[in-house]
Amino acid sequence: MAPAPRGLFVTLEGIDGSGKSTQARRLAAALEAEGRAVTLTREPGGAPGAEEIRRLLVTGAPGRWSAETEILLFTAARRDHLERRLAPALAAGHIVICDRYVDSTRAYQGGDPARRALVDALHREAIGLDPDLTLLCDIAPEAAAARAAARAEGAGEDRFERKGLALQRALRARFLAMAEAEPARFRVVDAAAPEETVARRLRDALAPALDAAAPLR
Amino acid sequence: MAPAPRGLFVTLEGIDGSGKSTQARRLAAALEAEGRAVTLTREPGGAPGAEEIRRLLVTGAPGRWSAETEILLFTAARRDHLERRLAPALAAGHIVICDRYVDSTRAYQGGDPARRALVDALHREAIGLDPDLTLLCDIAPEAAAARAAARAEGAGEDRFERKGLALQRALRARFLAMAEAEPARFRVVDAAAPEETVARRLRDALAPALDAAAPLR
Ligand SMILES: Nc1ncnc2c1ncn2[C@@H]1O[C@H](COP(=O)(O)OP(=O)(O)OP(=O)(O)O)[C@@H](O)[C@H]1O
Ligand SMILES: Nc1ncnc2c1ncn2[C@@H]1O[C@H](COP(=O)(O)OP(=O)(O)OP(=O)(O)O)[C@@H](O)[C@H]1O
Ligand SMILES: [Mg+2]
Ligand SMILES: [Mg+2]
Repeated sequence: MAPAPRGLFVTLEGIDGSGKSTQARRLAAALEAEGRAVTLTREPGGAPGAEEIRRLLVTGAPGRWSAETEILLFTAARRDHLERRLAPALAAGHIVICDRYVDSTRAYQGGDPARRALVDALHREAIGLDPDLTLLCDIAPEAAAARAAARAEGAGEDRFERKGLALQRALRARFLAMAEAEPARFRVVDAAAPEETVARRLRDALAPALDAAAPLR
Repeated sequence: MAPAPRGLFVTLEGIDGSGKSTQARRLAAALEAEGRAVTLTREPGGAPGAEEIRRLLVTGAPGRWSAETEILLFTAARRDHLERRLAPALAAGHIVICDRYVDSTRAYQGGDPARRALVDALHREAIGLDPDLTLLCDIAPEAAAARAAARAEGAGEDRFERKGLALQRALRARFLAMAEAEPARFRVVDAAAPEETVARRLRDALAPALDAAAPLR
């Protein structure tokens, strides 16, 4: 839909509490400190309309939407985000760091083959923009759960309790399978390491793509 | 997705002010008076989640969503409506009378070939339920506009002013082209006639389908 992107589109993926948001912020700050033009954004959301769709998705009773309706709503939010934020930033030559993208929809809503086919079909028909690079924050669910517990009270603290370790294990396996299926796009990083270590590894994983794109900057 | 429907799925389509809602109510009342089980519903909306998506679509500034994002949101609302209302009613053997459905998305958002292809692809991938019969309330935009003007003040009164007669003419042409392309599904009724006359013609248009479905009731 948009003119061919000239920037670099980087997504962060991983199970709940794997450190995506922490690392997305650090990566954006590090690249900005190097003098690069960076757009830090997230999904679902990232643009005003998309954030309103996000509210429909994250509020209300569990089971409010079927997985299929969720897939449609996530794709609607993604389309809005793409038009209003991702495509303009890439067209302007930015490095776009996006906290979750279509692989999260594949992992969370695309757990069975029919739903995975629906995610893929909608992505192809209505979105059509794939990341240049996807950084998978890989961690054992038990370790991520321990972080959530360490955070103690507050929103999300019972997320592992609610969703269950079994689901987090399934999500981890789905992310790893996607990485294996698309080795050129994915970089898998051990996200159980200390924050600074993970940050360095993610910045290193970006180096070849940044070098290749250097003439743009 | 749902078990094969056993009822009869009837949609009403047509430009703004053509009399769809008036006739949908009359038709439902007439069929109920005959002792038939009827579900009267509308799109976008028709189920609690779908009505919330409707609010995103009908409120806010014009241009808030692109046509493509609108197509995704209409399809999300339709999927929720399908799961929570249409499929259960049809499975229970009801005659479902639905005020607007996918043909409205085709007409309003599918005005150019790429967008029409998107509407059709999403319908195929995520919905998959076509009406047994579609009643097209056909009327000249000028005549529909005169009705709106007669209603005087209130919500929607400036709709023709806003959207313009040229758009309503294009919408009418798109609906008529769909009817021509699918003559087995569509019945075109002259909606400029008096209300009672239109009501009788719509009930008559339903007769063969009701006779064919008679063993179900
Ligand atoms: N490498 C790390 N070592 C220890 N704790 C960490 C590390 N990275 C992040 N954390 C902490 O773990 C918690 C979860 O991190 P964060 O919110 O970044 O994860 P997330 O993947 O974005 O989670 P969510 O899926 O809930 O959005 C936070 O309290 C964060 O401070
Ligand atoms: N056959 C008719 N003759 C004269 N007026 C009519 C007729 N049918 C409906 N009307 C009037 O025209 C107006 C529009 O009717 P209605 O709301 O049923 O149309 P609609 O197709 O549902 O419109 P919208 O697209 O705005 O939902 C109403 O004031 C209604 O009372
Ligand atoms: Mg996060
Ligand atoms: Mg109406």
